[in-house]
Amino acid sequence: MTLAARPPAAALVFRTLLVHGPLPRAEIGRRTGLSPGAVTKVATPLLADGWLTELGGPAAAGARGSGRPAVPLAIRADRARFVGVKITGDELIGVLTDLTARPLATGRAELRSRDVDTAVPDLARLVSRLCADAGPERPGGGRGPAYGAVHGLGVTLAGDVDGRTGVVGYSPFLDWRRVPLARLVEAATGLPTLVENDVRALTVAEQWFGAGVGLSSFALVTVGAGIGCGLSIDGRVVSGAHGVSGEVGHLPVGGTDRVCTCGNTGCVEAVASSRAITEQAREAAGDPGLGMAGAVRLAHAGHREVRAVFARAGRAMGLALASVANLVGPERIVISGEGVSSYDLYEEQIRRTFAAHAFGAAADCDLVVRPLPFEEWARGGAAVAAQRLFAPLG
Amino acid sequence: MTLAARPPAAALVFRTLLVHGPLPRAEIGRRTGLSPGAVTKVATPLLADGWLTELGGPAAAGARGSGRPAVPLAIRADRARFVGVKITGDELIGVLTDLTARPLATGRAELRSRDVDTAVPDLARLVSRLCADAGPERPGGGRGPAYGAVHGLGVTLAGDVDGRTGVVGYSPFLDWRRVPLARLVEAATGLPTLVENDVRALTVAEQWFGAGVGLSSFALVTVGAGIGCGLSIDGRVVSGAHGVSGEVGHLPVGGTDRVCTCGNTGCVEAVASSRAITEQAREAAGDPGLGMAGAVRLAHAGHREVRAVFARAGRAMGLALASVANLVGPERIVISGEGVSSYDLYEEQIRRTFAAHAFGAAADCDLVVRPLPFEEWARGGAAVAAQRLFAPLG
Repeated sequence: MTLAARPPAAALVFRTLLVHGPLPRAEIGRRTGLSPGAVTKVATPLLADGWLTELGGPAAAGARGSGRPAVPLAIRADRARFVGVKITGDELIGVLTDLTARPLATGRAELRSRDVDTAVPDLARLVSRLCADAGPERPGGGRGPAYGAVHGLGVTLAGDVDGRTGVVGYSPFLDWRRVPLARLVEAATGLPTLVENDVRALTVAEQWFGAGVGLSSFALVTVGAGIGCGLSIDGRVVSGAHGVSGEVGHLPVGGTDRVCTCGNTGCVEAVASSRAITEQAREAAGDPGLGMAGAVRLAHAGHREVRAVFARAGRAMGLALASVANLVGPERIVISGEGVSSYDLYEEQIRRTFAAHAFGAAADCDLVVRPLPFEEWARGGAAVAAQRLFAPLG
Repeated sequence: MTLAARPPAAALVFRTLLVHGPLPRAEIGRRTGLSPGAVTKVATPLLADGWLTELGGPAAAGARGSGRPAVPLAIRADRARFVGVKITGDELIGVLTDLTARPLATGRAELRSRDVDTAVPDLARLVSRLCADAGPERPGGGRGPAYGAVHGLGVTLAGDVDGRTGVVGYSPFLDWRRVPLARLVEAATGLPTLVENDVRALTVAEQWFGAGVGLSSFALVTVGAGIGCGLSIDGRVVSGAHGVSGEVGHLPVGGTDRVCTCGNTGCVEAVASSRAITEQAREAAGDPGLGMAGAVRLAHAGHREVRAVFARAGRAMGLALASVANLVGPERIVISGEGVSSYDLYEEQIRRTFAAHAFGAAADCDLVVRPLPFEEWARGGAAVAAQRLFAPLG
């Protein structure tokens, strides 16, 4: 029986231990609202199947029979492994993790073509390499099938991704439309596969193991080629009734006539995405060959017009963050993405604009900058795959 | 034992019946994930205390003992009564409801002064009148205390209201700051009292009994003296980690130099609140004595500049609704509030702007206009008071 097929109480106990770490049965009962009897009833088969283990020496273990409320229960992290892969416009980034999304191995592969028929086999090869790195260890120690130790694969990418159907509706960087990616990757790897929007998956990982642990709510805003946002409220990542949520890049904050990739003017992305910044910097510097690195150099060297480009981007970002705070009121906003590497150029504008436009106590929301390499994004895929194990409480 | 002191499973069963109506035990089990035994264990004392009743004739009732999975269970709506009061800048609007927030009596009273020491006794008199209307019926049929039939009172008002502490942080229309309103009203009425932001309370009522029933998520946007928003996601109304949420009136959508009540420019409220519309219409018509009714008349008569004022308000509202859709992705947005009475003057601009700026599938979000009189807002207070009965699941 997979964990997903178990009653919701089992999933609740499992998730509580995953997020909080080892806890005695009595404390699990207090945190879940389950009776001591119900906790024991749930924990016994999970212990028998090796999903949970009892901590403590023989004295504690010998204390009493099946109840033993004082002995902490813990997740057996090595009981299952997962692979997460993030697809960017030109690279595949993979990570192999244990059940608690702790990385065991990482790897990267060039995306030789954006053609789905090339990308899927390339992805399968990367996954196979990571699984080989997992070594011979298998559940029960026997000689299982090739992917025996790995329970699932989570593939993440930017764009309109439907985690329920496994279909990529639209990926702007790969120019994929209506690609049944989960089915294709599952056929190529033999692994149970799910796909998810990359920012949402990263938010799941941050919620359980990162800057969101223990918070009632937080937002993860990523700045780079696109500007995205994951919202976690009461321990759940908001997915949107129509599959769209967290599109801070397309909040209409105005202040520009530049046309966004979506066709509108006034979008945050129209001034603050890396492409928008580069284009504006080229114009400001009168250098059509200027790239982002060159723009950052010019700004650091004090080029007034290029510095103004970053300041405008910072102002748009600050308005976007204030909108998130005024609407949802998260406890914390985590800022990440490639754009964070030049954060010093617009941090002041972001914070000043945010403080001015956050309404009342919404300004108490904590702004935290957190560089997360692509391996962390890939880990988001593994976390989402692990989450599927106890899906009822998603 | 109050319902709040019962185990979470009881609250879960009770809320399931409240939202879905009568259900057989087996179906309750399916919807809550509780085992049939757990449902029976929970339902038995609720039946004994008169919170639940079994539907169906004697044949069904005589079928078997305590299990009887096919007999529907139902909430006993008459088991408890609640009072809700909404406070505006010049009036108190009250409603007496049953346990399912069905109105049994309504009443209004002038707010003679915004002084707390006058408002609280006035409110207590209105509550007392409504309770007298409740008639002699009391739990158990005995001669209980004066407010015996009424289990709680919910007072709602606009502004920064902390439902947990019962303190009104700031009410702009009443100019109240740090008023411990729940404590004062409780002392004056003898009823367990809670206070809540009026839009959030109305959202709770809509979630259970109105336009939000059965939706995974919805937003309630109210337009009038202020512009507010309640967000319901997965059956919970978002309250904000710092007490602020749903402040769509202060989303910085730009497009104006008018200064908002919060001191910023670019806020939705700076062009779309009833005060902002009236002020701009006065200027456009060159008539310093013009009120909202006059502005609406001029617009309907075809006054070009006054019509443009409503169109600008509609555009700002459309940008605000698109921001809500892009960020949270609700299934539906319900538009209500006093401003709805002149909705025909800006509906087209709202819908056109929303359609243009909602990102991708977020545009599938349903926009519904729903006039809700202040009695419905007062009912929100009663719904929040009733919710306290099964607080563990909020």
